[in-house]
Amino acid sequence: MNSITTAFKTIGLIGKYGDPGVNDTLSALRTYLQTRGLRVLLDEDTAKTFPSTSLEIASRQVIGEQCDLVIVVGGDGTLLNAARALASTGIPLAGVNLGRLGFLADISPGRMIERMEEILRGHYLLEERCLLHSEIKRADQTISEACALNDMVVHKWNMLRMIEFETYIDGQFVNSQRADGLIVATPTGSTAYALSGGGPILHPTLNAIALVPICPHTLSSRPIVVSGDSRIDIVITDCNHDRAQLTSDGQLSAGLLEGDHVHIRKKERPIRLIHPADHDHYQILRAKLRWGEKL
Amino acid sequence: MNSITTAFKTIGLIGKYGDPGVNDTLSALRTYLQTRGLRVLLDEDTAKTFPSTSLEIASRQVIGEQCDLVIVVGGDGTLLNAARALASTGIPLAGVNLGRLGFLADISPGRMIERMEEILRGHYLLEERCLLHSEIKRADQTISEACALNDMVVHKWNMLRMIEFETYIDGQFVNSQRADGLIVATPTGSTAYALSGGGPILHPTLNAIALVPICPHTLSSRPIVVSGDSRIDIVITDCNHDRAQLTSDGQLSAGLLEGDHVHIRKKERPIRLIHPADHDHYQILRAKLRWGEKL
Amino acid sequence: MNSITTAFKTIGLIGKYGDPGVNDTLSALRTYLQTRGLRVLLDEDTAKTFPSTSLEIASRQVIGEQCDLVIVVGGDGTLLNAARALASTGIPLAGVNLGRLGFLADISPGRMIERMEEILRGHYLLEERCLLHSEIKRADQTISEACALNDMVVHKWNMLRMIEFETYIDGQFVNSQRADGLIVATPTGSTAYALSGGGPILHPTLNAIALVPICPHTLSSRPIVVSGDSRIDIVITDCNHDRAQLTSDGQLSAGLLEGDHVHIRKKERPIRLIHPADHDHYQILRAKLRWGEKL
Amino acid sequence: MNSITTAFKTIGLIGKYGDPGVNDTLSALRTYLQTRGLRVLLDEDTAKTFPSTSLEIASRQVIGEQCDLVIVVGGDGTLLNAARALASTGIPLAGVNLGRLGFLADISPGRMIERMEEILRGHYLLEERCLLHSEIKRADQTISEACALNDMVVHKWNMLRMIEFETYIDGQFVNSQRADGLIVATPTGSTAYALSGGGPILHPTLNAIALVPICPHTLSSRPIVVSGDSRIDIVITDCNHDRAQLTSDGQLSAGLLEGDHVHIRKKERPIRLIHPADHDHYQILRAKLRWGEKL
Repeated sequence: MNSITTAFKTIGLIGKYGDPGVNDTLSALRTYLQTRGLRVLLDEDTAKTFPSTSLEIASRQVIGEQCDLVIVVGGDGTLLNAARALASTGIPLAGVNLGRLGFLADISPGRMIERMEEILRGHYLLEERCLLHSEIKRADQTISEACALNDMVVHKWNMLRMIEFETYIDGQFVNSQRADGLIVATPTGSTAYALSGGGPILHPTLNAIALVPICPHTLSSRPIVVSGDSRIDIVITDCNHDRAQLTSDGQLSAGLLEGDHVHIRKKERPIRLIHPADHDHYQILRAKLRWGEKL
Repeated sequence: MNSITTAFKTIGLIGKYGDPGVNDTLSALRTYLQTRGLRVLLDEDTAKTFPSTSLEIASRQVIGEQCDLVIVVGGDGTLLNAARALASTGIPLAGVNLGRLGFLADISPGRMIERMEEILRGHYLLEERCLLHSEIKRADQTISEACALNDMVVHKWNMLRMIEFETYIDGQFVNSQRADGLIVATPTGSTAYALSGGGPILHPTLNAIALVPICPHTLSSRPIVVSGDSRIDIVITDCNHDRAQLTSDGQLSAGLLEGDHVHIRKKERPIRLIHPADHDHYQILRAKLRWGEKL
Repeated sequence: MNSITTAFKTIGLIGKYGDPGVNDTLSALRTYLQTRGLRVLLDEDTAKTFPSTSLEIASRQVIGEQCDLVIVVGGDGTLLNAARALASTGIPLAGVNLGRLGFLADISPGRMIERMEEILRGHYLLEERCLLHSEIKRADQTISEACALNDMVVHKWNMLRMIEFETYIDGQFVNSQRADGLIVATPTGSTAYALSGGGPILHPTLNAIALVPICPHTLSSRPIVVSGDSRIDIVITDCNHDRAQLTSDGQLSAGLLEGDHVHIRKKERPIRLIHPADHDHYQILRAKLRWGEKL
Repeated sequence: MNSITTAFKTIGLIGKYGDPGVNDTLSALRTYLQTRGLRVLLDEDTAKTFPSTSLEIASRQVIGEQCDLVIVVGGDGTLLNAARALASTGIPLAGVNLGRLGFLADISPGRMIERMEEILRGHYLLEERCLLHSEIKRADQTISEACALNDMVVHKWNMLRMIEFETYIDGQFVNSQRADGLIVATPTGSTAYALSGGGPILHPTLNAIALVPICPHTLSSRPIVVSGDSRIDIVITDCNHDRAQLTSDGQLSAGLLEGDHVHIRKKERPIRLIHPADHDHYQILRAKLRWGEKL
């Protein structure tokens, strides 16, 4: 193989954290990219389990400054992580799924080189996915901020009873609820935890946010879908100390106290995903949700 | 009361079809509007049960050509009907609810005159609501067209077993399903039949369409929300003669045969609703769904 | 093979109605049973598509009077049918599934002879499944009766709007509902239509009946499970002529008018199913509902 | 009022823990019961907030040994608590609800004296409700036992991700699940937390146990209802230290480790509730679930 003319001249490589199972795939990618004459930066965390003397090691910040494309090897979780870390850079990400087919990481290892060749030659599908940003206010002080590609979840923590909270959308009171929690999900997150909670599937291009109550006490409580430009405010009205929390993409963001306000908005800048040109969102849905094929 | 300076100079009056129970309200509206020096056209169907010698009688077409505002007295059903009839005109509609509070008809009779005064003075909330348009193709011939403010529903009819159909969004195959049917709902319709079928609540301003399967055989089948600009195609793949149908807003649109294609798109022109200035969508939701108030 | 000593001396054979696709299996069964020295009666409907000069042809009534065991070849639908026809006889039924694995017909054609040998030798699992009996009363006259192994369903028919009905259990008023219908299911039927309607899975041995509303207007309406000995009464309170119906196991039982009372009770005599000795209800559930295996 | 001839000669009084808001009601009950010539034992915990020199103070054990009837003043939570404490005694309990109407505590304070008079005269409805007993086995050692009237819940605790567990019924493998948890509920508990989780309503007299998964990852996972005599085993297959727990009636029972077995069975002895003679379970359901009345 000869060097290639491509818009992606410097490529970042990120592998699943602490998992040497991705090394063979990383190794094949390295060989391929170097043969193609491209500069490759290896994520410093990945380098701990994938030692590579022939690659430049770089922090995520340097990757964010210098790369034109980042390839993530692992699964949706690894890509979620990398996406949040590089959210402010606008660098496109492509994901190689090692386990099962992912909603985000949809390049199979078996066809990886072929797919990479297509992508480098400019034959791919670029998709933008929005992120959520949260801010917790306590007595008018911002005590915590976070961002998420899937969801922000307010839920009970360390406790036995439901929590109580009020929801406001664009300043308008929606309802008071007693529930195990509330999932605020992007279209990307609508096929993750929110789906288990009974939420609808939102198409990735929809400018929308879903609010899905978890085990609500009021049986007529239903998932609500609002504009992606909405301001969502959740006010904790009843929970004892350390009994509610906010998680972003399943990572603990902060403990919540009675009276805390959680403000959630879409981040201005979306992340950009690179898919093979024949990417088919519904085909992935059918596979993941075991809908079966054409009757 | 003296005559009023208002942008709404000619007003159409439409009452619930065949129901003399709306006469007192129509009568009070007539007196008020005439005292205010406005021209009032009475819908010819309404005139059958509300005889009024002091009003001009007009067909819906004339109302559509000459009115600046149409006031509908009845409930959400009456307004739904008027909205479809006047869909192409762009005339704003205001609804007086005689029975229970409506999602669409939200002016209570008790405060009607006060509300109308505010509206005529330009103090109101104008809201656009999109409509769906359906076209049934059989062997490349269009055999039926319809429009709906709430929903288009493909469902079994006269039959004992599920029907089978394929769904396509923007030409992409989504899935094959065996089910009692499929509800394709606007945000307006998301709080109607689609909600009974397990669909999410969509905010009225969201540019989106919900697809909600009715009693699907595949348990992982879930409501899907797509962009309001999507082309939705439903292909009937298995049903015996006269056993599936399309209804639009609960009105029979057409019987469906195996092989029929149902194309559904948003209509370009939305209808326009006039609400009192303090209209609160979530307050109506709380009342209708018995969510209770602040805890 | 020699003749066998077995409690099942006269065996009835019933095939899927009008489907010559079952002939090879019927033929293999005939050969096997005759070699074993057993008397075999062929159902007269089955004989129309499976002509067999070497077999006695018998009506279902004669089969019911003379057989010790009936083998049904087809799927759950065929077995459902045979079970209802033979409900009053107490003859055990065994089902060979030709299409997919069935909840009821669980002997695969590939292992059929081996399974039959075990069954004839007395090595099998005998299971009782209860049936429902319905009676429609109009002005104190019984106008229709039916029986079902899966479910009795009151639902809208030929109509565009919901129906309204009241439900009573053991004479106690439960609720008034507007809905597309109500499924009254046995444990056997809990994995059929009732499951699509959101009902729970009831273990086959549970003495219980599930009431599952279809698309109920009241969002807090939920499936209710009551004792199998309960008297269930459904009173149609609002539906225009010919717009509601009762179906039993998906077969039209009768049209319903406003004021009609539908009485549903468990039949005293259950049917008896014969399964291979290693029959595993949960294994079938996992396969049919695609739950996946042990993680 | 004169002394009364009744089977209930010694009456226990238990009030909501730590809530002086029940004192007026306790006081009215005391006066009434003493006027009727009955011996009254006051629960020692209740005595802390309801000092009463004219009453004998007794531990729950003494109440269990000497009383013929226990009256609980508070709500369903208070009655739940008393029921568990007195579970092995067989003493009937009657509940006065101070807040909202309860499923268990259904005597309203306004008609309390009239109701008590009826009950003392033998005019009441006696109902048995079963309890669950749980046992946690770790490496064949029983490390914890508990009992519950509503439910045993295995759920994630202090953790961000789902837990994984296997379920067995009567020794048969049902499924492996990744979920937030699993609710094992009695008929009594079916209208409590299990209902929020999507479970069915089980009639109180049904001999059944419901298994309701909480936010299951597999979308076709559904509530299952099994015989009340079933042995239920839940094996924790994946959770990090201190990240899953068992709660009984919402009280922390124990932390769970990977490999722990949770065995759940119905307790042999049910508790006995005393209701007014016109007690109507469905009327309470309609009120609590806001089903509305007859249409």
